[in-house]
Amino acid sequence: MNKYAEALHLVREKEPLVQCITNFVTVNDCANIILAAGGSPSMAHDVREAAEAARNARALVCNMGAIEDAPSMILAGKEMNKLGRPVVLDPVAAGGTSLRREVAAELLKEVKFSSIRGNASEIRYLAGQQTAGSGVDVSALDKITEENLKEAAEMVRALAERTGSVIAVSGKLDLVSDGKETAVLRNGCATMARITGSGCMLTSMIGAFCGAMPEDCFTATVAAMSVMGISGEVAEARRIKNGTGNATFRTDLIDAVFNMTEEQLVEGMQYEIL
Amino acid sequence: MNKYAEALHLVREKEPLVQCITNFVTVNDCANIILAAGGSPSMAHDVREAAEAARNARALVCNMGAIEDAPSMILAGKEMNKLGRPVVLDPVAAGGTSLRREVAAELLKEVKFSSIRGNASEIRYLAGQQTAGSGVDVSALDKITEENLKEAAEMVRALAERTGSVIAVSGKLDLVSDGKETAVLRNGCATMARITGSGCMLTSMIGAFCGAMPEDCFTATVAAMSVMGISGEVAEARRIKNGTGNATFRTDLIDAVFNMTEEQLVEGMQYEIL
Amino acid sequence: MNKYAEALHLVREKEPLVQCITNFVTVNDCANIILAAGGSPSMAHDVREAAEAARNARALVCNMGAIEDAPSMILAGKEMNKLGRPVVLDPVAAGGTSLRREVAAELLKEVKFSSIRGNASEIRYLAGQQTAGSGVDVSALDKITEENLKEAAEMVRALAERTGSVIAVSGKLDLVSDGKETAVLRNGCATMARITGSGCMLTSMIGAFCGAMPEDCFTATVAAMSVMGISGEVAEARRIKNGTGNATFRTDLIDAVFNMTEEQLVEGMQYEIL
Repeated sequence: MNKYAEALHLVREKEPLVQCITNFVTVNDCANIILAAGGSPSMAHDVREAAEAARNARALVCNMGAIEDAPSMILAGKEMNKLGRPVVLDPVAAGGTSLRREVAAELLKEVKFSSIRGNASEIRYLAGQQTAGSGVDVSALDKITEENLKEAAEMVRALAERTGSVIAVSGKLDLVSDGKETAVLRNGCATMARITGSGCMLTSMIGAFCGAMPEDCFTATVAAMSVMGISGEVAEARRIKNGTGNATFRTDLIDAVFNMTEEQLVEGMQYEIL
Repeated sequence: MNKYAEALHLVREKEPLVQCITNFVTVNDCANIILAAGGSPSMAHDVREAAEAARNARALVCNMGAIEDAPSMILAGKEMNKLGRPVVLDPVAAGGTSLRREVAAELLKEVKFSSIRGNASEIRYLAGQQTAGSGVDVSALDKITEENLKEAAEMVRALAERTGSVIAVSGKLDLVSDGKETAVLRNGCATMARITGSGCMLTSMIGAFCGAMPEDCFTATVAAMSVMGISGEVAEARRIKNGTGNATFRTDLIDAVFNMTEEQLVEGMQYEIL
Repeated sequence: MNKYAEALHLVREKEPLVQCITNFVTVNDCANIILAAGGSPSMAHDVREAAEAARNARALVCNMGAIEDAPSMILAGKEMNKLGRPVVLDPVAAGGTSLRREVAAELLKEVKFSSIRGNASEIRYLAGQQTAGSGVDVSALDKITEENLKEAAEMVRALAERTGSVIAVSGKLDLVSDGKETAVLRNGCATMARITGSGCMLTSMIGAFCGAMPEDCFTATVAAMSVMGISGEVAEARRIKNGTGNATFRTDLIDAVFNMTEEQLVEGMQYEIL
């Protein structure tokens, strides 16, 4: 079986419980997309139970949108590190404010992440580059394009090597690297940036895939990103056909994950290993 | 008039204000399903105003998903107990962590609940049984089936008798008991477990029905659970017909509550008094 | 160009970053409707970064549903006042509890608001009238009707004059005044009161319009309210045609904002300057 199809297969077979410490803006969508993929979400985040709750889960997702829950992320993250289970980081607006710069540094110091997924501004910030991002959205100057692809791929690869985490940048072009292999993915559509939470949902889904395939978080991350990108294309085709807008697009996107087949994933994936 | 139809009728007639102290994952769906049923939701949860806000309401819903708001639940619950108005508990993941075990015990000690709605793992835990549940989802071992129905019904009845609360278990089979009468309900569909919040939404709707029919919380609870189950069937028929997924299912479920007629409820209810 | 069409045009052209400190019930819808309108939402609310995060934004929205975040609203609001950028207030349930009365008074003392949008109970409370509102919903006694329109318009005008803010009341009839001009708007539909968050979403959208047209918050507020009202009409026509309910209505409402054209706004606006 194709290994990306196998990752999807394993999510449906194992129904991994994914513990998400994530922000109130998109938490409902994150839970529903994990369910759509085939996993089981738990959103417990109270510092008094974060580590104990994580112990029941196959993977942990730490989303810096829930900046006030950083202490819970550290407790739960250390617990999962001890248990050898995947921990996924979404460094929301990591370089945006001094608080976020501090929290990002502390999380990276205290917890070993299997996979880190951000937009280009966030990942460039973690890589130590100057960034132009003013918050949750990627800055135009930071974006990954066919023109700067080589430079960006090397940035992502080097960050993966330095951190020992799979590094994933999502955008018009996605990049994923484990420090050795680097993949560029070309699925998705522009409307994904017109809903809140496409990034958060993707990170949550990476948690489900890593929870189902903990021995290969690179493949799991590529598979989750491809499922998301292809689902975006399905939802976009419907939006154009039906003349709907971003709210219906969001619903269709989650539905498309729910209905994604292994064949559809294998046939739809637009990727290349650099 | 059929008494379950009357309960639905009263929700639409009285438009009860329902105060919900509930979790951030599903709070929006809880508010929208109360509105769909015909009630009016208030989600104020700040400990400085919880009791005062509750005073304006016809019923209070305490959802342990909002574990950090337990102090607000106790203050508002005591206030509603004093006023003689219904208080409904959703013991989310009650046995899942030591924090939840403590909070569940404290809530049950401090507040008298009219109705308690959980999944089989949660209710079995409250009944003092060993449970296998690892969090928000019901464990396969705990589930209520046609095979263990008699044992489960007695467990629910005894818990109702001991607590003086209507006890409701939702799942493939629903059970409701007030310690004297015990009803088994057979509406619903499997996709309800593929969205986040079907349990929370149901508990919120029980709050609306109890607020409209405070003198008979057993009937109100049975009616609310039947409205939810039938709505699940309506949404499932649409999902199968249209090839949609869990996100559209959630929308269709709330729509079905919005459009539920008294006739549809009476004709669609699959229940039996044991 | 018609000035209301120009306001919509500017939102799409400038894509203003709107910082919202808003409540967990409707925060996802608020973010998605800002995106639908053409703006870019940021929901950062932690008191340690609220002011710094606001500095990146073109407008700030303070929603009193997030009552526990009042300190963040004050810090961010003062910062935006210093920068001369619009700050919009949604005084959710302002007169409903003593806590809310205190917080409303403190916000109005500490921050200068460009625009304040509430329901009739909330705005009447701010104007010093006796109100009957018991929480988040407008009381029937407080509503603005064709019968009390003259009195209500004077109340709104006087409050605008006293506070120096544009005052907007939404309901069956909307009123907007800057103390000189007062407009009455007659778009919208009754189903808007059957979803949670129509008020919150509207206030967020006012933030986007004021962020794009800071030099004329009266026009920006009227334009945003008209976009919302016309979108409600579009969604209502679909609901009636398709037999759907309040959940689909919410999705269609946001979609209609996404698809709103300048021509549709100009042709659909039902307004008169009193």
